[in-house]
Amino acid sequence: MQTKHFVNDPEKLVEAALKSHCIIRPDLRLDVKNKILYSPTSIGSPGKVSIISGGGSGHEPAFTGFVGEGALAASVAGTIFASPSSKQVLHAIEGVDASKGILVTVMNYTGDVLNFGVALEKAKAGNPNLKIEMLVVGDDVGVPRSRAGKVGRRGIAGTVLVHKITGALAAAGSDLDEVSRVGRLVASNLASIGVSLSRVHVPGRPHEDTAQDSLGAAEVELGMGIHNESGCGRRSGADAELPILIRDMLQQVLDPSDADRNYLPQGCQEVVLLVNNLGALSVLELGAVITEVTEQVQRIYKLKILRLYSGTFMTSLDGPGFSISLLNVVDTGVQQSLLDLLDAPSNIPGWHVTRPDNNAISHLSATQRIQRTQNQEELPKTSLNCDMVTTLKHLQNGLSAIIAAEPEITKYDDLVGDGDCGTTLKRGAESKSPLSRKQIDSIK
Amino acid sequence: MQTKHFVNDPEKLVEAALKSHCIIRPDLRLDVKNKILYSPTSIGSPGKVSIISGGGSGHEPAFTGFVGEGALAASVAGTIFASPSSKQVLHAIEGVDASKGILVTVMNYTGDVLNFGVALEKAKAGNPNLKIEMLVVGDDVGVPRSRAGKVGRRGIAGTVLVHKITGALAAAGSDLDEVSRVGRLVASNLASIGVSLSRVHVPGRPHEDTAQDSLGAAEVELGMGIHNESGCGRRSGADAELPILIRDMLQQVLDPSDADRNYLPQGCQEVVLLVNNLGALSVLELGAVITEVTEQVQRIYKLKILRLYSGTFMTSLDGPGFSISLLNVVDTGVQQSLLDLLDAPSNIPGWHVTRPDNNAISHLSATQRIQRTQNQEELPKTSLNCDMVTTLKHLQNGLSAIIAAEPEITKYDDLVGDGDCGTTLKRGAESKSPLSRKQIDSIK
Repeated sequence: MQTKHFVNDPEKLVEAALKSHCIIRPDLRLDVKNKILYSPTSIGSPGKVSIISGGGSGHEPAFTGFVGEGALAASVAGTIFASPSSKQVLHAIEGVDASKGILVTVMNYTGDVLNFGVALEKAKAGNPNLKIEMLVVGDDVGVPRSRAGKVGRRGIAGTVLVHKITGALAAAGSDLDEVSRVGRLVASNLASIGVSLSRVHVPGRPHEDTAQDSLGAAEVELGMGIHNESGCGRRSGADAELPILIRDMLQQVLDPSDADRNYLPQGCQEVVLLVNNLGALSVLELGAVITEVTEQVQRIYKLKILRLYSGTFMTSLDGPGFSISLLNVVDTGVQQSLLDLLDAPSNIPGWHVTRPDNNAISHLSATQRIQRTQNQEELPKTSLNCDMVTTLKHLQNGLSAIIAAEPEITKYDDLVGDGDCGTTLKRGAESKSPLSRKQIDSIK
Repeated sequence: MQTKHFVNDPEKLVEAALKSHCIIRPDLRLDVKNKILYSPTSIGSPGKVSIISGGGSGHEPAFTGFVGEGALAASVAGTIFASPSSKQVLHAIEGVDASKGILVTVMNYTGDVLNFGVALEKAKAGNPNLKIEMLVVGDDVGVPRSRAGKVGRRGIAGTVLVHKITGALAAAGSDLDEVSRVGRLVASNLASIGVSLSRVHVPGRPHEDTAQDSLGAAEVELGMGIHNESGCGRRSGADAELPILIRDMLQQVLDPSDADRNYLPQGCQEVVLLVNNLGALSVLELGAVITEVTEQVQRIYKLKILRLYSGTFMTSLDGPGFSISLLNVVDTGVQQSLLDLLDAPSNIPGWHVTRPDNNAISHLSATQRIQRTQNQEELPKTSLNCDMVTTLKHLQNGLSAIIAAEPEITKYDDLVGDGDCGTTLKRGAESKSPLSRKQIDSIK
């Protein structure tokens, strides 16, 4: 667990991070005191439903990075992992255009549901004509139905799909009833599951707080929440190998034989897939995760992936893990399909999708595009004779010496070069001979 | 340092990550054996200069995420932190359209310069008519001039600006001479500096290798390279506070009084700024870094930031750090300005820029957009009388008890909630009274 930070004071950190949005995107407005980021579009162009979201900080780019055209009218931030107060939320409700109504979307956490809920009730009490709806998203299946109890599922990365879809519908001019209804439809067809190599340290908190619950040196935790919440179990060894891990994660979401688990409706055949970096997974590893997840979703569950989104959408600070979200592509009942709404243009940095239209993927065709030509190069003839037993013995001794020297070579290359010399030599020394036994014999 | 990974075998990891590109972007082609990712555009539409880059893996999205229209024709990957072989590079040179020539751009590391260089010479030997140029980028000023010696500066994140600019120029139809010349111009007007909280662990290597050089619990390393290379010094305590750290990083690049340091030419007034996540910095912290860097660049150096790019462009696996790159906006000598070329459309995921046109920023105007209204709310009158001394004493005792109980409340809320209850109560207990001393006296 990384316990060091460049900024240790959580108040300063959140305020400075909020300000960065106005620097990067000169069209936004920030209410520093109430930690509200406003999209001027939604304020300046009445006649669209305004969507407000928010929650504790530490999940960026959610939700500050989703403020803008075709998404959120405002986001309200608490301090790290802590809900904003109802007073802050009330300011946001009063700050956006309400002429066509307001949708308040939050993730299912006690503090958020309470504070956003109280603000909504206060706003209604203050203005009986106000059209305002609340939508609570709980897509995390890390905790099974039987254990979720009255509290229900937690909200995690799948929530950004709700924002993108409702935001596009609002931008297209739909009324509050329609935007809320489609939002609820999306939320009820959505399931996510996370996994992490470690809990995260919250700036400003004593190190021991998070350290005491930390995972073992080879452990991963399945279903861990985005605020260090416990998941459904820890894994290590062969059970923590990526293919097994992803198989089990997908089972958590899709297993039709487990009533506690099959979260997507029966008959679901087409999905949108979101592979989300919890904050500190290397882009390299996220790539390997994407390859494994898409392969299994298609091979094991025969699901057609109509859209694939991957990257950093909702973090748990610098969480070294990822989450998988699956959205069942259902009929919206309105003119625009879910794909139309996901593809609709938007200028929000949180939705960093390079190719918004038609990235429908086919793993089979992808495989075909991967060249697998193993050139069987012909060996040139030679009149050279040598004692193969002695040659191979000396060669093997030399190669073993190179392999054994790798840590030392790496150590010195780390000091004076870029640290790759040892492993490059070792890789060469370990690689198999291109000669077959028969070819070796023919040289003898 | 995070020593756990979801995939520990570097060979499997790199191959799976390469395949993910073809899954996400169905237009790409992958030569698995030679770890080459091709943009079909550059192969299928002759008449443009083809740009090839690459290097060790572990720096994603550089450079696989830069393959595509308006950027690279192909990227060649080695294993983690190790250069690809000259044979791999030669395959790439032979695989792209060469009708208008090829530019091979690499970062300044011994292995890359050697292997890409050998491949280039072999290609020229095999085809004397081949127009091919090599461009070596060394933007890292972590090591001062006096210590860089014959090897020169290392290449880091600024390199992506070279790719974007040369790629746009090639896409516009410029010839090889022009593309190379502008590429060299950009490289010579570019300076970067990194900082990290920790070295990174390379999958597959023994933990001890990287652990032995690891930083202290409160240390940061200035100028650390993207392969764990040592920088120019370690900091801790007040010297590691973000404003001081960034002041010193900018001095490394810009200090006009230090001949060993002032890397951008005299008279430089307008810059492009790139703030890059080395892989595992939380998006929240990167936000705070962006705010501090832009503020200092403008206030201390009076530089006008014409474009600001921030996010994950070139990683050191899951490096918990960031780098700052500054590009002096010089005249290109061709029709398109540097800004035109940076703004030119491209479909590459590595260049995740939401607002390509005109994000010229002004920190002052950003500040003006930040509302600072501190409502001086009037207190309602009351006929209540109380003994203020006793009241304040009891109140203070209660508040102290809440503050003291924070760790325990947080612990239990971590177990059953989302972990924010303790800090929320503590924040409330610690906040200053809205009453002035005079107001308190008036109640007495």
